[in-house]
Amino acid sequence: MQNAAPAKEHVINAAQLLEHWQGHRKLTRRVIEVFPEDAFFNFSIGGMRPFSQLTWELLTIAAPGITGIVTGDWGSLGDNSHNYAAAAPKTKEGFLKLWDESTAALDEQWETLPDSRFQETILAFGQYEGTIFSTILYFVDNEIHHRGQGYVYLRALGVEPPAFWDRS
Amino acid sequence: MQNAAPAKEHVINAAQLLEHWQGHRKLTRRVIEVFPEDAFFNFSIGGMRPFSQLTWELLTIAAPGITGIVTGDWGSLGDNSHNYAAAAPKTKEGFLKLWDESTAALDEQWETLPDSRFQETILAFGQYEGTIFSTILYFVDNEIHHRGQGYVYLRALGVEPPAFWDRS
Repeated sequence: MQNAAPAKEHVINAAQLLEHWQGHRKLTRRVIEVFPEDAFFNFSIGGMRPFSQLTWELLTIAAPGITGIVTGDWGSLGDNSHNYAAAAPKTKEGFLKLWDESTAALDEQWETLPDSRFQETILAFGQYEGTIFSTILYFVDNEIHHRGQGYVYLRALGVEPPAFWDRS
Repeated sequence: MQNAAPAKEHVINAAQLLEHWQGHRKLTRRVIEVFPEDAFFNFSIGGMRPFSQLTWELLTIAAPGITGIVTGDWGSLGDNSHNYAAAAPKTKEGFLKLWDESTAALDEQWETLPDSRFQETILAFGQYEGTIFSTILYFVDNEIHHRGQGYVYLRALGVEPPAFWDRS
């Protein structure tokens, strides 16, 4: 089951890193979809944020994050002037619309990011120092982390979450 | 805050991918440590597995997984003959000991994995087809996912989880 190694010995290439990110975002979108509308905004465990607030955090990171990486122009986290939406939507439908807009923005901005930049050190959102690749992995990891929490909320609500392995 | 791009334009290199994995494993180790002993084995929400069982899953993936990747010799998941431990420990201390042994095994095996292999397609555990890099990312993502669930258990138990951003 082993293919020949490609000519360029990338451990992970840029297109694969984008696919990794967008694959996770597709799964998170399905988690938002299966949440009951009321529980999305109001259900929580142990004093944690409802899944709508966790989702809002993810939205304020993804598109503003890739824009900051590409342009070097960062708003600070929570600085709405730099976000494409001024405030969190009041409905799941509104969240899903922003989610899809972020998906398109991410694809579009990614095209302009050359391979040579992934090892650059940046100050994400004006405060988090790291390489571009590690910043992107952090964004993805943060999404997996919070989505995993959403799975517990869904199980506690008696709702079957989407399959973790499906990134299509 | 930007450094010059390095000569070799890796988006992510092999050493960085290992650091990514081991950094997450350090954080998961701290989550195991802060769990109350009894809750580690018995607490759950919504019919999910206790954190000890989630941790056992991670242990049966990490060291056996890297061994399979490096050697091409896979046991199947849950096939104890291929695991370094025949059964899950009965104490947190026992889990932490296996965790540290896995950490060392991962570092040791990684040294023997050449850059040229990361884009190879393999059949992990004899059943999951994917490239080596995507298989490794899947192992890490699965750990982040289950650990995020552990954070909810801890919050429900009134225990402060370790900081998500700290991978030291």
